[in-house]
Amino acid sequence: MNWRVLGVDPGLAQTGWGLVDSDGNRHKHVDHGTIATNSGEPPELRLLTLHREMSAIISAFKPMAVGAEKLYFARNVSSAMPVAQARGAVLLTAALHGLRVEEFTPNTIKESVVGTGSADKSQIGKMIMLLLGLTEAPDTDHAADALAVAITFIHREAVSELYGAR
Amino acid sequence: MNWRVLGVDPGLAQTGWGLVDSDGNRHKHVDHGTIATNSGEPPELRLLTLHREMSAIISAFKPMAVGAEKLYFARNVSSAMPVAQARGAVLLTAALHGLRVEEFTPNTIKESVVGTGSADKSQIGKMIMLLLGLTEAPDTDHAADALAVAITFIHREAVSELYGAR
Repeated sequence: MNWRVLGVDPGLAQTGWGLVDSDGNRHKHVDHGTIATNSGEPPELRLLTLHREMSAIISAFKPMAVGAEKLYFARNVSSAMPVAQARGAVLLTAALHGLRVEEFTPNTIKESVVGTGSADKSQIGKMIMLLLGLTEAPDTDHAADALAVAITFIHREAVSELYGAR
Repeated sequence: MNWRVLGVDPGLAQTGWGLVDSDGNRHKHVDHGTIATNSGEPPELRLLTLHREMSAIISAFKPMAVGAEKLYFARNVSSAMPVAQARGAVLLTAALHGLRVEEFTPNTIKESVVGTGSADKSQIGKMIMLLLGLTEAPDTDHAADALAVAITFIHREAVSELYGAR
């Protein structure tokens, strides 16, 4: 199999994105970055900026699918609302480009990338650099998480191709 | 002033919408309805359905602005996430059509429509029918809430035109 996956870590202020190619055996880093929106603008215009930049990334790199972290509202409930709205805009943008979206819990991502659900952010960052042969850490934690989501997506697809399970 | 406002009560399963014309003095009901999405489909396709139907409504009726209820996560946090994502898709759709969005708290809407923040759903429904001269209740509570949001928007615009405050 040959995959190009766009991982996304959505947020209203910052959305991380990361593109990874893979033949199932070897991962290749394509690009990553962080989409920032202006906190002085009304929410609908910030979502429009997010949509436009994500659309441009999809058009430029033509991923085959999108991976996104599943949202939980365990802790800060009021800060979760803008994140969920940004997530809605990201899912809609993927659908407008005809891309399917797979969602993964934070635990699944940690297990897939580091091998244990109890991994912390710095371990994820280091494993991302190792797995993708990066010499520098991604610009933001959001971009690192997005690359981790893309790798998780590819792992799960590889497993389901091997074992026929989803 | 002459306004045509689209009020929206967003949700993933059901999104209510309602269009109201007004010269500030007299409200005129234009149309209302409920957009339903298929729970058997993945979230991104449900958001796409919501976006397409809302886009069609905006293109057909050409409202000048959109009003939406502000979201609170007071009670059921896990059911709030799909609502917030749907809300993100609705705000993005408005922005894609160049429409500004005003958001109102449930209390503001109740005060604006019924005159008291402690009004319940059935009082809102009755006042909506009275204010808009409807002989039948809207098809869903979501559609009734959407019409209430549109009326709230118009009230607030009328007040700000009279007093120059926003």
